[in-house]
Amino acid sequence: MAAADSDKRFALIKENLAEVLNEEIIKKILDEGKHPKIYWGTATTGRPHCGYFVPAIKIAQFLAAGCDVTILLADIHGFLDNLKAPLELVMHRAEFYRHIITTMLKAVGVSTDKLRVVLGSSYQKSPEYVMDVYKMASLISEHDAKKAGAEVVKQTDNAPLSGLLYPILQVLDEQYLDCDAQFGGMDQRKLFTAAKEWLPKLGYRERAHLLNPMVPGLHGGKMSSSDPDSKIDLLDPPDVVAKKIRKAHAAPQVVEENGLLAFIEFVLLPAARLRGEGEFKVERERDGLEPLVYTDIEKIRQDYKNDVLTPQLIKPAITRELNALLAPIQAAFQASKEWQEIADKAYPPPPKKEKKVKNKGTRYPGAAKGQEQPKEGAAPAADGATKAEELPIRPGGEAAN
Amino acid sequence: MAAADSDKRFALIKENLAEVLNEEIIKKILDEGKHPKIYWGTATTGRPHCGYFVPAIKIAQFLAAGCDVTILLADIHGFLDNLKAPLELVMHRAEFYRHIITTMLKAVGVSTDKLRVVLGSSYQKSPEYVMDVYKMASLISEHDAKKAGAEVVKQTDNAPLSGLLYPILQVLDEQYLDCDAQFGGMDQRKLFTAAKEWLPKLGYRERAHLLNPMVPGLHGGKMSSSDPDSKIDLLDPPDVVAKKIRKAHAAPQVVEENGLLAFIEFVLLPAARLRGEGEFKVERERDGLEPLVYTDIEKIRQDYKNDVLTPQLIKPAITRELNALLAPIQAAFQASKEWQEIADKAYPPPPKKEKKVKNKGTRYPGAAKGQEQPKEGAAPAADGATKAEELPIRPGGEAAN
Repeated sequence: MAAADSDKRFALIKENLAEVLNEEIIKKILDEGKHPKIYWGTATTGRPHCGYFVPAIKIAQFLAAGCDVTILLADIHGFLDNLKAPLELVMHRAEFYRHIITTMLKAVGVSTDKLRVVLGSSYQKSPEYVMDVYKMASLISEHDAKKAGAEVVKQTDNAPLSGLLYPILQVLDEQYLDCDAQFGGMDQRKLFTAAKEWLPKLGYRERAHLLNPMVPGLHGGKMSSSDPDSKIDLLDPPDVVAKKIRKAHAAPQVVEENGLLAFIEFVLLPAARLRGEGEFKVERERDGLEPLVYTDIEKIRQDYKNDVLTPQLIKPAITRELNALLAPIQAAFQASKEWQEIADKAYPPPPKKEKKVKNKGTRYPGAAKGQEQPKEGAAPAADGATKAEELPIRPGGEAAN
Repeated sequence: MAAADSDKRFALIKENLAEVLNEEIIKKILDEGKHPKIYWGTATTGRPHCGYFVPAIKIAQFLAAGCDVTILLADIHGFLDNLKAPLELVMHRAEFYRHIITTMLKAVGVSTDKLRVVLGSSYQKSPEYVMDVYKMASLISEHDAKKAGAEVVKQTDNAPLSGLLYPILQVLDEQYLDCDAQFGGMDQRKLFTAAKEWLPKLGYRERAHLLNPMVPGLHGGKMSSSDPDSKIDLLDPPDVVAKKIRKAHAAPQVVEENGLLAFIEFVLLPAARLRGEGEFKVERERDGLEPLVYTDIEKIRQDYKNDVLTPQLIKPAITRELNALLAPIQAAFQASKEWQEIADKAYPPPPKKEKKVKNKGTRYPGAAKGQEQPKEGAAPAADGATKAEELPIRPGGEAAN
């Protein structure tokens, strides 16, 4: 009975993951009927968008499986990556992250009693932590630090030195957040294997690592950071969501790197299972047909390949489900004056450009078109959201939506 | 009058230096009749030897010129470079450094009222400092950090990452020690020019930099770190000093890279001037001749070139003067129970090797000769002293004695 329960919990923890390193660490805790402590970090540089549902769903599953989860809001990283933004702004963003991520998890229907949200700055400046940063820096080589950060940190010769420091911080966070396992995207793999090697050098224990696959964004494998429409904000109203999904690229019959199918696989189906019903329904009323009802991704893939399930059919279904996930988040936002005020402070509208007086000849020869006005729906989010992609955040394989 | 005084003080500050960067910063303070604040740092890894007289004399001159001097005992650096040595040992060494350096300055006859000795660990773990380390790391590139440390930090791909962090700490120390100028050896030049560039990035003011030339050791340009006889410990008794100087390499008539002449130029003559008499006397009793009395190095060089002044004549003179400098230090050591206890803790005798039983054939085939017993005079100092040379200390151009 206890063993069966342990297996069930472990299956939920592992679901949809690409890889688990040192899973025996987690299994042992489950076998003892205890609560594995899992940590996930995110730099509070940009603004969480719908792609954050990918790690959020895994976190919801960890919670549902009886894990204690710590979300690290890496505000110091955020501040350092954005040095031109004042520390105050980053602190506001961290608060915004705290609200929205907690609400995302509630929207999926899991209890957040076992969720802890920690600000990096609350311990990353402590003397003990700092001594460990210094120590670790003297025990690992530049080469090793570079290798560890290879996929998450820009690595030109001109890249800032902080990029070599971040891996050390992220590894030490496992110890200082007192976790049994760290969760992240497959792009974190080198960092995670470094953590396995480095922590014992300071006499700390090795942790398990839970790796999410890299999930293509709703717009397919590549995302355009310059196109704000390529991201769906968590506070986008239903019609904006519908419009963005309508514009999403999805070739009929092609299942590889298909962001729509990926979103169903890694967000909508697991969310439905967490709610209990476990279904993904595609309406075909317009064609006078019965709806298609799916409970697993394989059948969806098959139907998509055979063109039974077309992009035209699937997009409204995703829109409906995504809006259903967003509705409680947006309701919570509308109901919280505090959160709204934080949002205003965290993402202030960009300073208004002076209106250009037309027919002034070459007086403003350098004025590019794109600078004039932020595009519809992008106003508050564009800066942060765009910026986030350039940064060594630790996304947990979120859709690059 | 005030201007004349300012010029005189500045001349003493600059005496024997190879270069001063941004001297206007110091001049301005002197012109206002105030006290320039100068800082010098040393990692407390090894054990100060007679080569430390080179920076110590400059520090004595700074004090004599009415400067406030801060000596940074970089214990964190020491600890990190010596990770295998427990922190406690490094703390004891820092205390030993504090005693011996202060006493060296007193031995030269200057007041140490304006001398402040600061432990790195007293502020290098503070939240403000650490935030600045993080900030600086995100503002400077790996390439720039490497360039800054090129001459003081080992730079292989396998060198520890701390080597890239040290330049940041050393630069920030200028701000946190609240100095107007940093003093160091010519090997620090790249680091000093980096400091000029980097501090303003964080909104801090640019400092002046005082550069000592690289002074050859008593044994000539090259020193052998494996030969403990090549160093004269500050607590070596007079006969050991005599013996070591007797063995010092010095080609007759060659003044270039001549460690004996350098010691006169950078230590003995300035020390004599600080005492007031300003003379360096060479006895020739044995040859039935009057002593040679010098007040400047040019005349000494000339006589040495012409073989009027031979190594045989100069060595006893240096021995006499050096022992005179060491006498008050050693007297202070003998008089201080506290300092003696610190010395025992800071440089515990190496653990005794098991005595090898002879005639056991090839039972210990790998036992190298050198491992058997520490050489005479090297017992307590050898480890630390040898180690120091391999480390990125900031020697202020001391003789590699």
